[in-house]
Amino acid sequence: MMKAKNRILSSAREHDSLAAILTDHKMAALGDAFINFAYSLALSARRGVPSGAKVRGSLLAEGLRRAGLRQYIPSGVSSHELADAAEALVVYAWLRDCITLEETVSLLEKNDDLAEGLRELLQKIIHRIRPS
Amino acid sequence: MMKAKNRILSSAREHDSLAAILTDHKMAALGDAFINFAYSLALSARRGVPSGAKVRGSLLAEGLRRAGLRQYIPSGVSSHELADAAEALVVYAWLRDCITLEETVSLLEKNDDLAEGLRELLQKIIHRIRPS
Repeated sequence: MMKAKNRILSSAREHDSLAAILTDHKMAALGDAFINFAYSLALSARRGVPSGAKVRGSLLAEGLRRAGLRQYIPSGVSSHELADAAEALVVYAWLRDCITLEETVSLLEKNDDLAEGLRELLQKIIHRIRPS
Repeated sequence: MMKAKNRILSSAREHDSLAAILTDHKMAALGDAFINFAYSLALSARRGVPSGAKVRGSLLAEGLRRAGLRQYIPSGVSSHELADAAEALVVYAWLRDCITLEETVSLLEKNDDLAEGLRELLQKIIHRIRPS
């Protein structure tokens, strides 16, 4: 995976702050695909049946707030943009090898409350990320 | 990843034939999330910009036909079901470690023609899979 990861990262606009990552809407579009796949795996493992699912934006936004990341995003943005911010940060962390797919699935799988799983995931990420 | 993979595989209904895999609609639901993530990564690497995208069902169906897999699926099924079959097989192969995410992304990335990338992916998979 490293080759594609590096090519995506090197081409992405520079992220000199957490705020820059959280407001990168292109990164959020990729993050949407990542988080839906990870959640589909988590749900499949929990249910014991292969499943496909999407993570609701309201839960992503709630996870972001609980993780204390709301302060890095301009006030007045929509809940949709908060969800985008969470998606952008998660896949950015994955691209930078700060978090693995396995870890993401495991965190989402063990929490009955998905927003709580997302909070835990986001907090783990911000403790590990050092924006360049 | 192995833990979640094994739990999903062990719980999935037994796949004693290629036809059984190709017609597993629950596996297809998980496969949809996998293939969209892999394609989003491939597109991001090609474009040099993080991107999210879905693989159109018609292209999945076309890739399946070109890979010579049409014969394993009952006649008269819809194009949607052919797309499901391709999605089910791809993620089944990933769950069984017959193909990696990296390899999938690489195959989709190098082909200008997405249906051709899917054909190559599916043919690689059937050469590797030994249904239990």
